[in-house]
Amino acid sequence: MTATATTTDPTPRLADFTATGASTGQLSTAVEARHFSFVVAEPESLGGTDEGANPIEYLLGSLNGCVTVVIETVATELGITVEGVRTDATGTIDLRGFAGTADVSPHFQQVTLTVTLATAAAEDELAELRARVLRRCPVFNLIRDAGVDIRETWDVRRPS
Amino acid sequence: MTATATTTDPTPRLADFTATGASTGQLSTAVEARHFSFVVAEPESLGGTDEGANPIEYLLGSLNGCVTVVIETVATELGITVEGVRTDATGTIDLRGFAGTADVSPHFQQVTLTVTLATAAAEDELAELRARVLRRCPVFNLIRDAGVDIRETWDVRRPS
Repeated sequence: MTATATTTDPTPRLADFTATGASTGQLSTAVEARHFSFVVAEPESLGGTDEGANPIEYLLGSLNGCVTVVIETVATELGITVEGVRTDATGTIDLRGFAGTADVSPHFQQVTLTVTLATAAAEDELAELRARVLRRCPVFNLIRDAGVDIRETWDVRRPS
Repeated sequence: MTATATTTDPTPRLADFTATGASTGQLSTAVEARHFSFVVAEPESLGGTDEGANPIEYLLGSLNGCVTVVIETVATELGITVEGVRTDATGTIDLRGFAGTADVSPHFQQVTLTVTLATAAAEDELAELRARVLRRCPVFNLIRDAGVDIRETWDVRRPS
């Protein structure tokens, strides 16, 4: 293992992140975050204009991006090389929660996450990579801490 | 009140939402969801290329979009008019969780959400709007269910 012992840092490292939204009508929102902007909308099937991905799709994309960042960060820590990181996230929602027609959670009944990557790292390094990613990824942990049944699968390709 | 009694719908209305991500190197992820695409990246201060908003910013934008959708949906149900819906979301993260340098949650220590809108609706209608939004917004409930201290403030402008 190339992992180094971690010394607990006693000093909080608090960072604020901000996004603002302005309704542009018919279930669409123009979002700004720092110097970036994107449109959150709903498909026509849900009454919107389909001008952009919907809130749940952005959240799943956030999960994909977050998992990727943490994989690459931890791989560097461990001194291993990972290539071709892909993430596929699907969330299942019972729309009765959003619609207010039944007493069910409005968010995920289940989330499946498939991580695909290629690496020549040893099995124990790979196990450590996975453990650290699941412990340290902010968005993954948010979904898990909300009590969501989140099923992750790792599809690791080995050099032939 | 213009609210109508709700009949509980016994039939689940399950819907799947999907986003896929492909690493493009240096902590950036190209995300696709249906026919939409967006780039999730990290700022240079966090080691990235700053090609797009970061995962936490997309998540907060998802919250903004989701709250807006539910406000507009519920306003229609209640037969009230709301205008100029704005949402400001800020999340505070202790970066030691992501960095793995202390045993703290990698996600939010706190989220503040400010909702600004204009309406001439009666006070009881406004209270009902707020209650339904907080009960039915998927992303708001995901964050709350994760045990996050989420503080929401409504700044309602009245016709003069």
